[in-house]
Amino acid sequence: MAVKVYGVAPFAGTQVITLILHELGIPFELILVDMLKLEHKKPEYIEEMHPFGQTPVFIDEDGTKLFECRAVARYLAMTHGGDSLYPIKDPKKLAAFEQAASIELTNFHPDILGLAREIIYKKFAGAEPDLQRVSELKASLEEKLLGYERILSKSKYLAGDDITLADLFHLPYGYLLSNVLNEISFNSPKTPNLGRWWDDITSRSSWKTVLAEGEKSPLQLPI
Amino acid sequence: MAVKVYGVAPFAGTQVITLILHELGIPFELILVDMLKLEHKKPEYIEEMHPFGQTPVFIDEDGTKLFECRAVARYLAMTHGGDSLYPIKDPKKLAAFEQAASIELTNFHPDILGLAREIIYKKFAGAEPDLQRVSELKASLEEKLLGYERILSKSKYLAGDDITLADLFHLPYGYLLSNVLNEISFNSPKTPNLGRWWDDITSRSSWKTVLAEGEKSPLQLPI
Repeated sequence: MAVKVYGVAPFAGTQVITLILHELGIPFELILVDMLKLEHKKPEYIEEMHPFGQTPVFIDEDGTKLFECRAVARYLAMTHGGDSLYPIKDPKKLAAFEQAASIELTNFHPDILGLAREIIYKKFAGAEPDLQRVSELKASLEEKLLGYERILSKSKYLAGDDITLADLFHLPYGYLLSNVLNEISFNSPKTPNLGRWWDDITSRSSWKTVLAEGEKSPLQLPI
Repeated sequence: MAVKVYGVAPFAGTQVITLILHELGIPFELILVDMLKLEHKKPEYIEEMHPFGQTPVFIDEDGTKLFECRAVARYLAMTHGGDSLYPIKDPKKLAAFEQAASIELTNFHPDILGLAREIIYKKFAGAEPDLQRVSELKASLEEKLLGYERILSKSKYLAGDDITLADLFHLPYGYLLSNVLNEISFNSPKTPNLGRWWDDITSRSSWKTVLAEGEKSPLQLPI
């Protein structure tokens, strides 16, 4: 019996989990939750699967059910990954990892999710982006990317010279907004080290597999 | 030599760190970064202390420098706290903890930080809140709090029946927006278990100490 992921292959949260499953070589079954039909807002889904009515949900072979993709990624790395992507045995390395993981959630994700909402998700509801808000979010993100450049001018990855989950967490939304939609750029003249890091993590075979799987999904983003 | 925290006593990020220091009984020295004078945006601060020009920054007795308050909290619990607030030795318990910690950052913090920006931080710049945005953020948060109620109807705390860092992370902004400003409520008829949990965590002596220390700060929020 394989582990199960309930979600949508080309959606960011699901991609975080399938990316780590591919990184660790863990076979899995992906079960589509048709979010356009609001399957994730049905009372039985909220009761049994996810108290916030969201995707993805992960179910381990022993029935352990988890949501929040970054928590699932840590769990997978801890149980199947040894000590590389999630260096849990060394307090200093773990502190550097958690610092990097928190940077992603506080200095990257809010702006980039805001951009995704304006530019992509509003299309699901037939609405137009608020262009002033898009402009504010881009300015805020550009400022943050200078902080990334400062970190990446001193180390190869965000938590030191080894890649960790914290680097990989940036891929789904970062790739969508930069490589697919060209709305933001990691490769500006002001951010050479950020560009080097971005080219590195986007070239991983695990990520290419995730993109290929997303293309086959019956549910796609409106882009 | 005591550990050092660079920040502002009554500001949320600093409070997360000092709260955990009090929980663990660790003496510390708090050094004020005068954010009204933009000390956190000076080039030497950005170069030496924090690549994003933010507070707080934590420096351990051995010189280890860390930022991102939730990463500092994990580091402190791991190095000084045994296995209670951050259950790092058991994969299932750690997964439940990281799920709860991620809920705070993805389902609570964005709305509540948005409210704090509109209602409090804009006053620093002499600006008025965008009332439509305040209304949207409150509606979004109310929906999320129903998810909290579902979790807390099944367990005493967010990651099970023992308190963890994930519960405590909610205190600074939650207390400010509910108990100080009465802008949101955790004690509605629809959320009895959320109210029970909130009364529990706000009554901790560590939190009362943090509030008392904040009152003595030369730099206060404009509320």
